[in-house]
Amino acid sequence: MSVGLPTARTELRVIYGDTDQMGVVYYANYLRYFEAGRNELIRSRGLRYRDFEERFALRLPVAEAGVTYRQPARYDDLVVVETSLTELRRASARFGYRLTREGHVLATGFTRHACVDLTGSLRRLPQELIDRLQGDGAAAGQGG
Amino acid sequence: MSVGLPTARTELRVIYGDTDQMGVVYYANYLRYFEAGRNELIRSRGLRYRDFEERFALRLPVAEAGVTYRQPARYDDLVVVETSLTELRRASARFGYRLTREGHVLATGFTRHACVDLTGSLRRLPQELIDRLQGDGAAAGQGG
Amino acid sequence: MSVGLPTARTELRVIYGDTDQMGVVYYANYLRYFEAGRNELIRSRGLRYRDFEERFALRLPVAEAGVTYRQPARYDDLVVVETSLTELRRASARFGYRLTREGHVLATGFTRHACVDLTGSLRRLPQELIDRLQGDGAAAGQGG
Amino acid sequence: MSVGLPTARTELRVIYGDTDQMGVVYYANYLRYFEAGRNELIRSRGLRYRDFEERFALRLPVAEAGVTYRQPARYDDLVVVETSLTELRRASARFGYRLTREGHVLATGFTRHACVDLTGSLRRLPQELIDRLQGDGAAAGQGG
Repeated sequence: MSVGLPTARTELRVIYGDTDQMGVVYYANYLRYFEAGRNELIRSRGLRYRDFEERFALRLPVAEAGVTYRQPARYDDLVVVETSLTELRRASARFGYRLTREGHVLATGFTRHACVDLTGSLRRLPQELIDRLQGDGAAAGQGG
Repeated sequence: MSVGLPTARTELRVIYGDTDQMGVVYYANYLRYFEAGRNELIRSRGLRYRDFEERFALRLPVAEAGVTYRQPARYDDLVVVETSLTELRRASARFGYRLTREGHVLATGFTRHACVDLTGSLRRLPQELIDRLQGDGAAAGQGG
Repeated sequence: MSVGLPTARTELRVIYGDTDQMGVVYYANYLRYFEAGRNELIRSRGLRYRDFEERFALRLPVAEAGVTYRQPARYDDLVVVETSLTELRRASARFGYRLTREGHVLATGFTRHACVDLTGSLRRLPQELIDRLQGDGAAAGQGG
Repeated sequence: MSVGLPTARTELRVIYGDTDQMGVVYYANYLRYFEAGRNELIRSRGLRYRDFEERFALRLPVAEAGVTYRQPARYDDLVVVETSLTELRRASARFGYRLTREGHVLATGFTRHACVDLTGSLRRLPQELIDRLQGDGAAAGQGG
């Protein structure tokens, strides 16, 4: 991923409720795992998405998402979600995801988010968010 | 169910995403089906739950829920949800549910709801809601 | 979409359980709606996906999926899912989706499916499936 | 809970996908949290539910479930699930659950499970499972 942009790693245990009758994780649930990874990346930069909404009165709804499924995740797997900020623009951000189990890639994907205010109008990303997301690791301990 | 209290019937098609690797509908999803039935019952009385929240600034969060699982629902089943209002108190309501497939009972259950305002304090159920829920079927065509 | 390839239309009512605290349908749930549309398209061709698995001992797991979110779907919306078969290859198929509410596009997307046997090995799509999917509408009444 | 019967504790981070537009965790998702707690309890006894299914060719489908909702869980909450085996019979088991956030009880509940073979017929719980579940903590390190 891009130099200088942050990454985070989180682990999830697959439950029965995540699987479908094919015996593997249902394809929509990978987007849930992506969200958990994204939350963790933002938290690792000393911010919480919850705070982001409250402090800036801004939201980051998903404008686009994509998943490539390589190997199925299964019940009771300990899945690792690696999340990277891959692009930061004036009013949008893009995250990349890689799901692995014991080093084997299960899926990759991305989400692109627009920055909007509470009325839904596009807004610039706040500078504090950009600083935190682009800053060095030292930022990580300061918040949340 | 109680005399004079309304019932409604709605049909749902089970998707892959509702099942788990046991090849049957995941146990939590029955509560989603109950919700669909409850929405339909309220709509059948000429009201929508959406309107209820907006018009009265009240909510009906679930205080208690129970499910008895009899026969598993499976992928592609057309499940019938029969919903009844079974109890109406000053500040709470209780609904009963019966899920069937081709006449065979799959599950039964209930939810009990408190009536609260937007701060979470208990409030009386509004008279209009009581009238609509207890009224005869003629009410059904007037709204929603 | 491509000439000669089938399309189907199905309607879904958004429940509370589909929404998130942003007040809109959670982004992963669009993939559930896509699945409902896909099932309906296959059923409309006189086949059920359930039969497909049983009769041919083949499966069509999702290899890739993408969604573009345009307008949020909300609680109680009646969402129309239009599904098209957009590509049919030797061992894969691609479906396109369009979600609308009262004629307004909420989201578009696609899924690409590999055809695999029960061991997970790639297999040709069975000719009967191809015939049904490419045949004229007359096929629709013969099965399911 | 009963003397001598095991308990386990697991932590879950609430994601956006767990919430609904009331701004709280959707009521069905508590049953997902219960499942995560149940898995952890079984794992803590040196067994995995996955193994249980494979080794004994038995399953423990839910026959009954109940939840009492006390305080809402919210996005980003770190929820603690305490799970106890509360009853062990010849062909069924019952688990109790308590969800807390920073020591405050959010919800309590139970699930009752039947022990069935792969045809769905009731079967005695295998002695090894009973021994592990009733044994002292020393059993915990021997498996899984």
